Amino acid sequence: MEKLKKYMSVKDEDHFYHQGAVELLIFNFLLILTILTIWLFKNHRFRFLHETGGAMLYGLVMGLIIRYVTKSPDVESGTVYECEKLKSGPSTLLINITNQVYEYQYKREISHHNVNGHQGNAMLQKMTFDPSIFFNILLPPIIFHAGYSLKKRHFFRNLGSILTYAFLGTAISCIVIGLIMYGFVKAMVHIGQLKQWEFHFTDCLFFGSLMSATDPVTVLAIFHELNVDTDLYTLLFGESVLNDAVAIVLTHSISIYSPKENPNAFDAAAFFQSVGNFLGIFAGSFAMGSSYAVVTALISFMHLTKFTKLCEFPMLETGLFFLLSWSAFLSAEAAGLTGIVAVLFCGVTQAHYTYNNLSPDSKMRTKQLFEFMNFLAENVIFCYMGLALFTFQNHIFNPLFIFGALVAVFVARASNIYPLSFLLNLGRKQKIPRNFQHMMMFSGLRGAIAFALAIRDTNSQPQQMMFSTALLMVFFTVWVFGGGTTPMLTWLQIRVGVDPDEDLKAKAASQSASNLDKNTTKAESAWLFRMWYGFDHKYLKPLLTHTGPPLTSTLPEWCNPVARLLTSPSAYGDPLKDGDTVYIINNDELTENYDSSAHLPVPAQDSTGSIQATGKEDIQEGDLGLGGYKLQLQHTAGQPQKNSLA
Amino acid sequence: MEKLKKYMSVKDEDHFYHQGAVELLIFNFLLILTILTIWLFKNHRFRFLHETGGAMLYGLVMGLIIRYVTKSPDVESGTVYECEKLKSGPSTLLINITNQVYEYQYKREISHHNVNGHQGNAMLQKMTFDPSIFFNILLPPIIFHAGYSLKKRHFFRNLGSILTYAFLGTAISCIVIGLIMYGFVKAMVHIGQLKQWEFHFTDCLFFGSLMSATDPVTVLAIFHELNVDTDLYTLLFGESVLNDAVAIVLTHSISIYSPKENPNAFDAAAFFQSVGNFLGIFAGSFAMGSSYAVVTALISFMHLTKFTKLCEFPMLETGLFFLLSWSAFLSAEAAGLTGIVAVLFCGVTQAHYTYNNLSPDSKMRTKQLFEFMNFLAENVIFCYMGLALFTFQNHIFNPLFIFGALVAVFVARASNIYPLSFLLNLGRKQKIPRNFQHMMMFSGLRGAIAFALAIRDTNSQPQQMMFSTALLMVFFTVWVFGGGTTPMLTWLQIRVGVDPDEDLKAKAASQSASNLDKNTTKAESAWLFRMWYGFDHKYLKPLLTHTGPPLTSTLPEWCNPVARLLTSPSAYGDPLKDGDTVYIINNDELTENYDSSAHLPVPAQDSTGSIQATGKEDIQEGDLGLGGYKLQLQHTAGQPQKNSLA
Repeated sequence: MEKLKKYMSVKDEDHFYHQGAVELLIFNFLLILTILTIWLFKNHRFRFLHETGGAMLYGLVMGLIIRYVTKSPDVESGTVYECEKLKSGPSTLLINITNQVYEYQYKREISHHNVNGHQGNAMLQKMTFDPSIFFNILLPPIIFHAGYSLKKRHFFRNLGSILTYAFLGTAISCIVIGLIMYGFVKAMVHIGQLKQWEFHFTDCLFFGSLMSATDPVTVLAIFHELNVDTDLYTLLFGESVLNDAVAIVLTHSISIYSPKENPNAFDAAAFFQSVGNFLGIFAGSFAMGSSYAVVTALISFMHLTKFTKLCEFPMLETGLFFLLSWSAFLSAEAAGLTGIVAVLFCGVTQAHYTYNNLSPDSKMRTKQLFEFMNFLAENVIFCYMGLALFTFQNHIFNPLFIFGALVAVFVARASNIYPLSFLLNLGRKQKIPRNFQHMMMFSGLRGAIAFALAIRDTNSQPQQMMFSTALLMVFFTVWVFGGGTTPMLTWLQIRVGVDPDEDLKAKAASQSASNLDKNTTKAESAWLFRMWYGFDHKYLKPLLTHTGPPLTSTLPEWCNPVARLLTSPSAYGDPLKDGDTVYIINNDELTENYDSSAHLPVPAQDSTGSIQATGKEDIQEGDLGLGGYKLQLQHTAGQPQKNSLA
Repeated sequence: MEKLKKYMSVKDEDHFYHQGAVELLIFNFLLILTILTIWLFKNHRFRFLHETGGAMLYGLVMGLIIRYVTKSPDVESGTVYECEKLKSGPSTLLINITNQVYEYQYKREISHHNVNGHQGNAMLQKMTFDPSIFFNILLPPIIFHAGYSLKKRHFFRNLGSILTYAFLGTAISCIVIGLIMYGFVKAMVHIGQLKQWEFHFTDCLFFGSLMSATDPVTVLAIFHELNVDTDLYTLLFGESVLNDAVAIVLTHSISIYSPKENPNAFDAAAFFQSVGNFLGIFAGSFAMGSSYAVVTALISFMHLTKFTKLCEFPMLETGLFFLLSWSAFLSAEAAGLTGIVAVLFCGVTQAHYTYNNLSPDSKMRTKQLFEFMNFLAENVIFCYMGLALFTFQNHIFNPLFIFGALVAVFVARASNIYPLSFLLNLGRKQKIPRNFQHMMMFSGLRGAIAFALAIRDTNSQPQQMMFSTALLMVFFTVWVFGGGTTPMLTWLQIRVGVDPDEDLKAKAASQSASNLDKNTTKAESAWLFRMWYGFDHKYLKPLLTHTGPPLTSTLPEWCNPVARLLTSPSAYGDPLKDGDTVYIINNDELTENYDSSAHLPVPAQDSTGSIQATGKEDIQEGDLGLGGYKLQLQHTAGQPQKNSLA
């Protein structure tokens, strides 16, 4: 008997290890399938199903197989046991069963209605992994990559519009969805579909905030592949990146918001507290992310006496860069802030300062590493979304609620894009045309963030219904709108095959050292940003990178000893290096718009791939946007693209 | 009340997420510290504490802090509850506590003696992570990287010796440790230290097999940095790589071995079954790993009509390469074989075939990716080992057992190296000198694999004692022997600063198209390997890569239609490409020893970093050995190294 038990234990153990391997193998298998499919699609220039849509489809099929092929072997799991001795749920439970102690780990508190027949299927349970893996491991690389690969020149030119869409637009979207859903919930109560449990207005707002996180990854990939108009691309990309951050903080604030007495009544104090929370969390996360990036920049910039610079060891540099950026996320989470926002701004700041200090080897390494992690994480999430439709065990699909969500999402997107575009066009010199507005309306896809926010807590019935609905919305928008992007572009007659540096070239060609352009560019942006760039160029860039004028020339004279200490030797000194610096400054995509249009660069057509290029090369690389797609699509991009659309 | 509970639940949830972030943050922090320390050490040419030793030290300090600073908040966790209703432990337990259902997940079966006071410290528990993470996630990249970066030329020249040390040596070591430990255990029983529980001979053998896995990562890093004699490096590296595989399979076989009646008696049938198991698992894992690599080679080689080759999309190619290699590991584990062995041979095969098919971009990407993953995984494991000394809650330190292990490990290493070296020197043309033998004896460090094997199951008391002892042995060998490597090299008067291609250059310089070298090289290796290389060069390489002679010329004439289909267009055709192929063949580090010594390359000193180099560059890159260290150390390697030793 003793022997048998020991044997059994070894068997279990083995079984356990293989299980872990099997689950990972399933994901690997799905990802391999996805990659092969992408390859196939790329060969056939098939753009109606993006890789993420494919990943989702494969996940769906796999989920179906797991759900209906694997059996529930564990009959006892569905039973609820009474335990009168305990007062609350301890984190570890030791249970003596037939004289053998078993250790059980606390997983979650579940509602009575969740105790259903599927409870015991170990395979299903293993496949539904911990939401904290999403937040701590899969999302950070995606968001960081978005920040790191921001097309800064175009981004900052459209910053005002992007911020308006992201902050104001997301708030509008959240409120509109919340209100419409509240109407539908009231109707459901009226019909009698929501008898047993409550669905508060805060729940509706919560749903509104999570459904406001747009994720047009499919659309952006197609835009990039077809070289769609850069301003449209930047507007959409910038909006979606910042909008995620806003939606996440909004969701967090709403979940904290708790009116004292009646959850349906409007409590002004609690509301303002929520707004305060929102601002506090956003600012705190921003500060956390940027400061980690500044620390990285300082470390990679350090030139202590007798110390070899870190850039002599690309592996250490890459490692430090990776770990500090991830730490920005984790510290923010640990401090009760929003990691996603922190890691986003960490990415932006890293790209702006640290990137310039990295060795050429590390520049390549970091870019490829984050690209690769982004690619994997994205496809894992979309596979998992497919899987979740069948493996998640507590779905609540309510047709009315789903229909309501569909309506709400479209109304909310429309009341975000059109009114704001109208307002923005009043102030913008370069108007946002009608067809761009329609395209932005059409590109309101929902993706990873909405899913991740919905899966974070699925214990109560309202939460389960919201999760199931959010999942369906992701499927619907990714497949229908993602697939419809190319026809829509043709229909709206949006330019494709645009050279992103077209405007620069035009400027360079037309100008003859006149300051005409300088003025027009300046007029486009607000004075606040001009001030910031002046400060950044004069003080921060020289302090944190090897570029910019030496601090000795920008700081007042009495600061000279300190300035000399803090300036990189490469920033001044011998005339050759000085010339180099001027060159770099003039090529800087930020500076060129605000300070020194007299030296606007004419991007050489053959400059890509040359290793000798110093500052220019780096900045152009930093300006790649979705670098991953660029690299993947290098080949196809060289071939006539317009034909394939016609 | 209802509200309070809801509020509590949200709090818990939040707390939970932050916990996950805090744990990861601790590891990030330790790794950042480690990287900064490595940087410091590299600047000061400090070689007495390797990065892994540093990582372990930081882990130790952090473990100490976590252990004694964080309190056990969960008083109820130490209590064992009775549950008469259950017959066995279900995978999920639903428990009704004060009318609220909590879900608990099965973690493990624990012995009564493990229920101690530390049980409830949630922080300690969170920090001791699942051993399956080691096996499924952290180890594969390390082992794959070892296989992928094998210095093939030197490895195959010493293959006989390496195989002898790895297979015969590990078996000897396992048996010697097992016997000595059995003696100590008997003594302990005699003294009365082992009264309550049994310690079988199979347990001793199990300990022997896990302690036989050497991991001289510290020594090899220093060897690489100082450019120690390549043959010594290769012997040690090859031995340690294969020896891990052997030790793992051995451990697995011993844990399966279960004599029917008396566990101390020698059961011939069970023994032979174990040997059979060993051979079967080894061969199966080898086949699994190689076949995944062959599939990768075929996919990356595919040149279907109308299909763009996969190498046009470096990201997809890298992704596929990564996923298929990891799948080799996971499939082997899922099939009940040994993943480590599979992934090792997958790495070797990938380097031999697939690497040649990759685009230049993917070659860089894969190498840097695996290097980076290896670097991170290695340091995580060593940090974790440091942590485990204080966070693992069921240590059993027995001075006599630890002393016994120390003695056993040294006696076993001696009875592995010296007798086998003596035997090998009888057959070797180029003898293994005395000082090399001493250095190999000295380099018998224990590391990640021994630890991972010991932590895999720590439920019974013998297992706990073995785990605690193994952990101490890792600390001792890494710090004492790792730190003593440089003085030992000086003391043993082993050459440093050796150019790994010295022998090639000497050959190239001395020969004038004579076949002298060819014969001596041939004499060094057995006929079996010559046959294999003939086959590989004539059939496998042309089939799986773009190199080698066209199959049409190597296969019999009647196979021509098939051969033409299977051969890459680049393997024959226009004279220019043909010349290229010949060049590649002649530069192949395997081929050059066996087939075409007439065209031996003279490695150009300035060839590194040039992008134009076609086949040659790739192969030289493939021959970098521990590429990561090479890259890290590029700078220091350029400076006079011998002085720092004197």
